[in-house]
Amino acid sequence: MIRVYVAKHSGFCFGVKRAMNIIDDVAKKGKKKPIYTLGPIIHNPQTVDKLKERGVTPLEDINDINEGTVVLRTHGVEKRFLESLKRSNLDVIDATCPFVSRAQDYVKKLKENGYNVIIIGENNHPEVLALKSQVSGAIVIENGDEISKIKSLKGSKVGIVSQTTQSIENFKGLVCLIMDYFKEVLVINTICNATSQRQESAIALAGKVDLMLIVGGKNSGNTKRLYTLCKRIAKHTHHIETAKEIKKSMLRNVKNVGIAAGASTPDWIVNDVKTNIKKIYKEELKNDRKR
Amino acid sequence: MIRVYVAKHSGFCFGVKRAMNIIDDVAKKGKKKPIYTLGPIIHNPQTVDKLKERGVTPLEDINDINEGTVVLRTHGVEKRFLESLKRSNLDVIDATCPFVSRAQDYVKKLKENGYNVIIIGENNHPEVLALKSQVSGAIVIENGDEISKIKSLKGSKVGIVSQTTQSIENFKGLVCLIMDYFKEVLVINTICNATSQRQESAIALAGKVDLMLIVGGKNSGNTKRLYTLCKRIAKHTHHIETAKEIKKSMLRNVKNVGIAAGASTPDWIVNDVKTNIKKIYKEELKNDRKR
Repeated sequence: MIRVYVAKHSGFCFGVKRAMNIIDDVAKKGKKKPIYTLGPIIHNPQTVDKLKERGVTPLEDINDINEGTVVLRTHGVEKRFLESLKRSNLDVIDATCPFVSRAQDYVKKLKENGYNVIIIGENNHPEVLALKSQVSGAIVIENGDEISKIKSLKGSKVGIVSQTTQSIENFKGLVCLIMDYFKEVLVINTICNATSQRQESAIALAGKVDLMLIVGGKNSGNTKRLYTLCKRIAKHTHHIETAKEIKKSMLRNVKNVGIAAGASTPDWIVNDVKTNIKKIYKEELKNDRKR
Repeated sequence: MIRVYVAKHSGFCFGVKRAMNIIDDVAKKGKKKPIYTLGPIIHNPQTVDKLKERGVTPLEDINDINEGTVVLRTHGVEKRFLESLKRSNLDVIDATCPFVSRAQDYVKKLKENGYNVIIIGENNHPEVLALKSQVSGAIVIENGDEISKIKSLKGSKVGIVSQTTQSIENFKGLVCLIMDYFKEVLVINTICNATSQRQESAIALAGKVDLMLIVGGKNSGNTKRLYTLCKRIAKHTHHIETAKEIKKSMLRNVKNVGIAAGASTPDWIVNDVKTNIKKIYKEELKNDRKR
């Protein structure tokens, strides 16, 4: 017997579900076609491919098009792109996650109140680029090695926000480093509840299983962090995007498998993973064990 | 040979020197006598004794007196005492350390701006009691075991200040714990530079000597923290108040002694300590080594 457990909090979060509903509505309600998303709507290539089949195309540059509807991705959009969109004839539908929008509002509020703005997150992640673009002079810190970046900041006040999908440990560790440089530090913990819940329940499950599979886009920041966090707990942790990546060798001598899916991973991929684990076990491993 | 080193930053800080000058002025300029201090002016019993000889008496309760001049201690004074003083006929001279006054101002500003106020410091230290008295509902956290105290706070915003003589490690550690409970945390690092400098140079010296002597009042919070910090580095660390506490046994097999004095320790005590170390070595230990 092989047992498969899925983390208590796993898969599509509120912001992703909302974006999927928005896209559905846009497709159904006969908005101006063609329909585009500015960058992939979420960081899940399989979902993006399914949307392509329905006529929703991810764009890298809005200058490539001059008609249709553009849906803004969950991660938010850099200010310069929003400004170009305003000047264009394109219809715009905003699917930015409300928690991301709130983080953007905090960035602006901090700057208005005289704080230097520091964003803790991945330098090149679209959410972080969009957060950074809200004000001039914001600095992004991804890890402790980048702390010297803040030396250019003048004044004694900094305000810190987080990419919504950071791990609380990285966030707190960097806040502590930043506290060495500034007398006044306003910390706005903009990590969303979905992130904390997914991380906590993945860690809890990783401690109880022989194999941990983290399922989600290889480009998904929150999925990558689930992997990093679980890898510390369970040596046999793998990050896979689809069921096809499960190898017979992964399951050898495994009795209990844990699955945790990123916030942008659809249920059907998780179900495929479960099915494939049982199939491989039944067809290839069950008999090995009996021998 | 025995070598004695004094930490680079050691002894009277700015606020203590200032208070001593104020007391001198008060004694000289013929203020209304008798002269009192509200509690010991600084946490150094020997200095307080010398002031008593000059007619400056520490008071516990201002209701015990009805004439003369009251000097407010470096640590600041609880609001209720200040209010009693205002209603009295006593002359009041304020020797509160300006860095402590600034921390008190921050406490009030935080409360005015809708923040729950948390003070990181010793529950029963006069500075902390005075800080806490500035506003209603402020909570004091001394260490991680007290974190449950903050559960009674309502709302999502807390502002944190520190007793000016805390160690940055304890402060940062508690800030991290508090961050688990609140989305918005405004951290005002009110630890004064003199504290950081004394702690850093004591730690640096402790790493280089065979024996570390921390010199200062047994009731002095900042001296106690120098002891705690150095004890982690140098096994042979002792907290002494005066030269009399140096024992021959402490110096046995010691070649290098480090001295760090608290912010309220006068130079003459440090000099006595140096002299006594050399005297004990010369008279009692030098010959032991030759044998």
